[in-house]
Amino acid sequence: MTSMHNVPLASLQTLDTLDTPAAVIDVPRMLHNIQRMQSRMTALGVSFRPHVKTSKCVEVAHAQLAAGAAGVTVSTLKEAARFFDDGVTDILYAVGMVASKLPAALALRRRGCDLKIVTDSVASAQAIVAFGAEFGETFDVWIEIDTDGHRSGIRPDDDALLDVARVLHDGGATLGGVMTHAGSSYDFDTPEALAAIAEQERAGCVRAATRLRDAGLPCPVVSVGSTPTALAAAHLDGVTEVRAGVYVFFDLVMHNVGVCTTDELALSVLTTVIGHQAEKGWAIVDAGWMAMSRDRGTQKQKRDFGYGQVCRIDGSVMPGYVLSGANQEHGILSREGEPDPDIVTRFPIGTLLRILPNHACATGAQFPEYHAFGPDRELATWPRLHGW
Amino acid sequence: MTSMHNVPLASLQTLDTLDTPAAVIDVPRMLHNIQRMQSRMTALGVSFRPHVKTSKCVEVAHAQLAAGAAGVTVSTLKEAARFFDDGVTDILYAVGMVASKLPAALALRRRGCDLKIVTDSVASAQAIVAFGAEFGETFDVWIEIDTDGHRSGIRPDDDALLDVARVLHDGGATLGGVMTHAGSSYDFDTPEALAAIAEQERAGCVRAATRLRDAGLPCPVVSVGSTPTALAAAHLDGVTEVRAGVYVFFDLVMHNVGVCTTDELALSVLTTVIGHQAEKGWAIVDAGWMAMSRDRGTQKQKRDFGYGQVCRIDGSVMPGYVLSGANQEHGILSREGEPDPDIVTRFPIGTLLRILPNHACATGAQFPEYHAFGPDRELATWPRLHGW
Repeated sequence: MTSMHNVPLASLQTLDTLDTPAAVIDVPRMLHNIQRMQSRMTALGVSFRPHVKTSKCVEVAHAQLAAGAAGVTVSTLKEAARFFDDGVTDILYAVGMVASKLPAALALRRRGCDLKIVTDSVASAQAIVAFGAEFGETFDVWIEIDTDGHRSGIRPDDDALLDVARVLHDGGATLGGVMTHAGSSYDFDTPEALAAIAEQERAGCVRAATRLRDAGLPCPVVSVGSTPTALAAAHLDGVTEVRAGVYVFFDLVMHNVGVCTTDELALSVLTTVIGHQAEKGWAIVDAGWMAMSRDRGTQKQKRDFGYGQVCRIDGSVMPGYVLSGANQEHGILSREGEPDPDIVTRFPIGTLLRILPNHACATGAQFPEYHAFGPDRELATWPRLHGW
Repeated sequence: MTSMHNVPLASLQTLDTLDTPAAVIDVPRMLHNIQRMQSRMTALGVSFRPHVKTSKCVEVAHAQLAAGAAGVTVSTLKEAARFFDDGVTDILYAVGMVASKLPAALALRRRGCDLKIVTDSVASAQAIVAFGAEFGETFDVWIEIDTDGHRSGIRPDDDALLDVARVLHDGGATLGGVMTHAGSSYDFDTPEALAAIAEQERAGCVRAATRLRDAGLPCPVVSVGSTPTALAAAHLDGVTEVRAGVYVFFDLVMHNVGVCTTDELALSVLTTVIGHQAEKGWAIVDAGWMAMSRDRGTQKQKRDFGYGQVCRIDGSVMPGYVLSGANQEHGILSREGEPDPDIVTRFPIGTLLRILPNHACATGAQFPEYHAFGPDRELATWPRLHGW
């Protein structure tokens, strides 16, 4: 695997050579974010398994693993294959398994990938053990726990927990543990509320593990996490590992949640001013929704950044200037509140800007590659996985 | 170029062999949409230049050209290069040109591409003619007209129109014409309102052309269009060509605008049921926002389809069932209004469904390729361009 120290990076001075729009990673900020999370996980006494669905980029995952992460979490089996091809063997596929995806999971395991899979139903558990028996494969299966009602999983006190566990255990699968994701943590924005949802996530997942163990079933792993809860948890007693994804770049949604400052946002979209509607106070840029994504995650938060916060090319925020609208390849840059009468002279045609996104996972997905840069370093292009 | 008759296509029976999520094109519907638009353009006496930003797919563009389209419209220079490489020479790049993109435009023209570029400012017009003079290239430049205030362009009666035209003409560029796009047509949903915005688009663009001609300047092309206005215009007197994009697939936004039925929607996302939350009336599918895109274009329309309309694998609509929520790789399928108490038996784990998207341009962009199918035909994979 490549060490970050050997990866050539772009200086700010070379950003102006890029075609726009372009997704750029501020590598010192990214490394700061990685260190911040890893230090916290170490202090809390848990393993850390970053969710690489945010970056879908092996260079980023290398930096996370080099800082101390133990394995990765993926959201698709294509991600699993890519990261396994790149030398990562300890991989959790954190989306409920179905029969039609078992052949791809089997193929990865046969190639030596220590792939863990997830289920939350008797039906899928039965499919897993039947397929495992047919092909002589012992799958490592984690049971998904629902600790906040936002998506999938079995409630910690639901009878189905033991039903699913017994199907797996009796059917010859390895009962690897329990996992949960309190995605509703994104809906809060005070330290108290975040600490409370973190405790709810921890306690619920530990409760599920305890029930399994009390029933004589194995449950070595207790895996929890989301970026807000990982950063807000007061303690993680009973938890063995944490998963988080977006922390590696952070974004405006996380800024509104209150777990980062804008100085920690490591992903931005480089864009060029291509025109104006002076009487409206608009500059038109070449970052539309195709570049920013259609994610309007800050729309219902305490501060709505439109399609993104405008920054100078050096990354410094221009307070009050946002992308207030977007067409496919046109972004509308304006000042919040009163229109800027000096929009044309402030943002002449050809001006390069950087836009901080609402949601790094969604914005990154619009680009085939990132351009990584840091002070006094060379340009680097880091490919990003696309599709399934 | 490939004729549609020679393109192998998938039958419905083979859809169940695809990994999910997958973007699938119902080719008979697509060909119907292409024929519908082309027939209308022929009847209105105008050329038709489809906007390939919707599909970003050469196989789709071939079908449009085979049906009678004259050239294509693109939203990025990467699209221009891809379609030129594929044999299309008559290409309009419909986003305002800036100096930094002129070398790429020059390279295309030097290779034989009949690339037209667009401007709406004196500053960019000056950059174009200066660059053209330096490199001995006569660019074909169209002036963008703003007929509805929604984005870029010069108002038809603005003095700047003649200023820009003179900079181009006197500087040695070819003044190719005027073009406009009444994107605000998406905001209407009655035949009367659509006819009115279509007439506003037509009249404004013709007015701009008349002003140029009255000033002794050439203006051979008068180009207008959006899918709603193209389908709603009562006449197109003075217009020489129309551009439209999304009509090739249509989508739920266009359905709400009122220019298509759901039976005309040619793009859908194939997905698999992976779990349930029975007490909530939810089925969980593997099409989250990464597959559907974050586009919530129907949110403010007369009918909100969430992240998409649920259909059986044969494409038949299941009324009232929508994707009501989405995480990155999880979609939440539920019934509008009362939760469905039979959700588990109605949608067993492993069930394949197809989801009609809000916005075909945005959903398509989430996929590296389309799977094209039609009755009694073979599977075809059609690549889709990604990035800039």
